[in-house]
Amino acid sequence: MADIKFEIKQTIGTLSESPKGWKKELNLISWNDKEPKYDLRDWDSEHKKMGKGVTLNAEELKKLRDLLNCIEL
Amino acid sequence: MADIKFEIKQTIGTLSESPKGWKKELNLISWNDKEPKYDLRDWDSEHKKMGKGVTLNAEELKKLRDLLNCIEL
Repeated sequence: MADIKFEIKQTIGTLSESPKGWKKELNLISWNDKEPKYDLRDWDSEHKKMGKGVTLNAEELKKLRDLLNCIEL
Repeated sequence: MADIKFEIKQTIGTLSESPKGWKKELNLISWNDKEPKYDLRDWDSEHKKMGKGVTLNAEELKKLRDLLNCIEL
């Protein structure tokens, strides 16, 4: 992971925080200088270490929003 | 990954499908016989191979829904 270049363009929000300070966040991130994508993953408090996650484009995020609005949570 | 036991309890929806047939899905999955969690990741067409992803509990998914309803997509 060490050599992946990334830049967090926008922090959209935090979903949760663990006792150790890791946060599950939705961000807009540019990976390796490419076009920014939405990204859902865990981060340490300094945004230096990251956990596994998924990247999503706007279309996928819209479908996710529509799904979440249809189910009982 | 081969020895992780999982059971897809419910397929909530598909966000996208790649030309090779991989789908980005939101599922309710029990990992290693534990309590099912919401799970967002890529799967091959037979649900045998999986990509990286995130698991979320209901609270995190609610926050995600609320976030997605607040932003312009």
